[in-house]
Amino acid sequence: MLAALRLRGWAKAPPAVKRCYSELNAPKAQTFKINSDRLWHDIHHTAQWSAPNATTEAGGLSRLSGTVYDKMARDWFRDQVTALGAKDYHVNGVGAQFATFAGEKDGIPPIAMGSHLDSVATGGRFDGPLGVIGALEVVRSMKEQGIKTHAPIALINWTNEEGARFFPPLGSSSVYAGQNSVAALHASQANDGSGETLGAALHSIGYVGEGPNTFETFPLSAHFEIHVEQQKSLERAGKPVGWVDGWHGISMFELTFHGEDGHANTYDMEGRRDTLVGASKVITEVERLAYSAKGRSTTTNIQSGPVGACNIQSWTKIVFCVMHPELAALEHMGRTAEEKARGIASEHGLGMEISRLLHLEPGTFWPEAVDCVKRACGDRGMGAPTLTAHDSTMTTLVCPTASVFARAKDGISHCAKEWSTQEDCAESALVLGKAVLNFDQLLKDGA
Amino acid sequence: MLAALRLRGWAKAPPAVKRCYSELNAPKAQTFKINSDRLWHDIHHTAQWSAPNATTEAGGLSRLSGTVYDKMARDWFRDQVTALGAKDYHVNGVGAQFATFAGEKDGIPPIAMGSHLDSVATGGRFDGPLGVIGALEVVRSMKEQGIKTHAPIALINWTNEEGARFFPPLGSSSVYAGQNSVAALHASQANDGSGETLGAALHSIGYVGEGPNTFETFPLSAHFEIHVEQQKSLERAGKPVGWVDGWHGISMFELTFHGEDGHANTYDMEGRRDTLVGASKVITEVERLAYSAKGRSTTTNIQSGPVGACNIQSWTKIVFCVMHPELAALEHMGRTAEEKARGIASEHGLGMEISRLLHLEPGTFWPEAVDCVKRACGDRGMGAPTLTAHDSTMTTLVCPTASVFARAKDGISHCAKEWSTQEDCAESALVLGKAVLNFDQLLKDGA
Repeated sequence: MLAALRLRGWAKAPPAVKRCYSELNAPKAQTFKINSDRLWHDIHHTAQWSAPNATTEAGGLSRLSGTVYDKMARDWFRDQVTALGAKDYHVNGVGAQFATFAGEKDGIPPIAMGSHLDSVATGGRFDGPLGVIGALEVVRSMKEQGIKTHAPIALINWTNEEGARFFPPLGSSSVYAGQNSVAALHASQANDGSGETLGAALHSIGYVGEGPNTFETFPLSAHFEIHVEQQKSLERAGKPVGWVDGWHGISMFELTFHGEDGHANTYDMEGRRDTLVGASKVITEVERLAYSAKGRSTTTNIQSGPVGACNIQSWTKIVFCVMHPELAALEHMGRTAEEKARGIASEHGLGMEISRLLHLEPGTFWPEAVDCVKRACGDRGMGAPTLTAHDSTMTTLVCPTASVFARAKDGISHCAKEWSTQEDCAESALVLGKAVLNFDQLLKDGA
Repeated sequence: MLAALRLRGWAKAPPAVKRCYSELNAPKAQTFKINSDRLWHDIHHTAQWSAPNATTEAGGLSRLSGTVYDKMARDWFRDQVTALGAKDYHVNGVGAQFATFAGEKDGIPPIAMGSHLDSVATGGRFDGPLGVIGALEVVRSMKEQGIKTHAPIALINWTNEEGARFFPPLGSSSVYAGQNSVAALHASQANDGSGETLGAALHSIGYVGEGPNTFETFPLSAHFEIHVEQQKSLERAGKPVGWVDGWHGISMFELTFHGEDGHANTYDMEGRRDTLVGASKVITEVERLAYSAKGRSTTTNIQSGPVGACNIQSWTKIVFCVMHPELAALEHMGRTAEEKARGIASEHGLGMEISRLLHLEPGTFWPEAVDCVKRACGDRGMGAPTLTAHDSTMTTLVCPTASVFARAKDGISHCAKEWSTQEDCAESALVLGKAVLNFDQLLKDGA
């Protein structure tokens, strides 16, 4: 499990790069274009690698990490970067794919663009393939337009960002940022209680490489990522793109109640130690808490036993998360949920274990990286926070990081209905490319 | 699934046997004895055939139907009845084991004693092995004491009474009583959603025989069963044994909520269609209902998805049961639970499917069979209702049936702590044997 992260905006002071809060884009960025049709084609072409189920039939994506569908998408990514002439391609110890393209000056760490090709079980086609395929499109277009950057460029497909099949989420990027070890990530457990691990799944698809795995062994000058917004800010404002000015805090908890076995029909109501009743009360309290604290909350997993037709449930495990833009309120939500759970445990005579699996404090990205995105957006964009974690909320712990939002239809995500138009996807890739070129200019000027 | 059973005390009028409400036991019953040590030994000897888990370690039993442990216990039963000289032994089409021992008059249907060797996942050693092994002990003792009955005697190990691995419960006895078909029983689905079926499991352990499967093709003169009480009536009254004068009603429901996929962190609280929140509210309402209706209720199973770390739950399925001694109140509980669920579905914008999987109306056993048990108990026993269903609540639909209670420590059942003393087990077997001899005398006198 990811040891309770306590992340702020960044873990160390930003490096001494020359800041350039110009209103203008760098010269190379001003003329940069991308191929909208090619990007759109690839988003939908790669969506074929999806588990066949109701989500796929509805036009969504079901590509859990470490599955054969994940392998197919990974192989495609490898083939694309190889064909594009990457000077280096490697898979690291936790399955992340890194492709590096030469710059004019190869002694400096690359500027990276990355996201993830895995999805949740009932996901859409954009979170996070848009971030990977958009980045690929930027490199393709740069090559076609004869744009050579000062710094090398890296394209990254991060492993198990979603945590949908194996917990924790933010898999390889958390290892990259020093928040988790390779061994711990390999031991990531299946959410369905089957006992499968991410490490075994990655081995089974041939995606455990030699490394390097961390910022220390593979430093980046910066990391940029496109993501669908997953909220309605851009849509409401009529803006196709945005710069992400920070993220809301998230705490995830695993709660297990231990009761006592007993006969479902014959046991007196008084004296029961029914864990499913207890867990149900916690779930309704956790939902109420979101309204009273003006935050958000979700119970995302429940497992209960013994499985059968005639038993009081003697153990129930739930996973829930609370979200808030303010740290004090976030921590208050977590404490309140735990207190409510303890009260319910006491009322029903239950044993209780609770652990905070993940704690991401609210924070902001690096101002000079955000500024590069902001200039790339111009008046077509606006600032908005992200309400969840991404690979960029890990890379920002170790290197200048910023993120680009693409407008999302109705703010829907993690659903087959997730949608961004061709135009909005293209504009987000254009902003990504311009932001990288802006940052590249900063490096050139400041180095 | 078992098509909503609507059972009353019996489905047709009791046959025209001569009633004999004597205070005395039949002559053969008056001297009958059983071997307490042998019975106690076999209860614990056979408990070795249990899945190795925490229940087994705690002295309980985990012998789910159709598993290798079930096969081992079945093989032992087959060997015992064969060694005892059964004139007929067969396995029927749904795995029930029938052994028949000759009487003085072989043209009449046998008097049966039976129960089940399967247990719930976290069960005890007595429910229902005591019923099978106690019956076996009666036949052994009769043989040793040279007691020959008028009617033949049948020993029965019924299949999947518990419904713990595969739904519905009361497996082979429901087929015997014409409440379910062989094909439907083979199609019984695994409660864990794995898609496994009872039929495939029975085939895998070699326990699908040729039949006969029903009362029509294998009639019984009567059916008697020992069961641990699963309540505290006998314990409170200081009685080691009891006659079961009837059963409480049970309705089981399967409820599925359909909502919408969405991101756990980013989706606005307003507008969510969170099925797990909805199901949790139903579970707490179902619990409350037991108190307000002065009945009982339990939610016995929950499954929810999509499985993952970051998704609002878009489908949740629960199974719950309500119990009451009075039919009108039972049906009111069922209707109220359904109304509450519809209100919650409406509040959360959920689609809902509900079906009543099983409906057992409260009823009573056959008076002349109960009287045989009552006389066998004498002043050592008392009458008490059972609060759940047994194989006998199926056989009573087609033939005179009664049941013997053994005192249970603290009324605990479906738990490793389930316990009856050696003395109480022995006394229940003695009552079983005497009751059979009493009924045999009725048959002899009345035939």
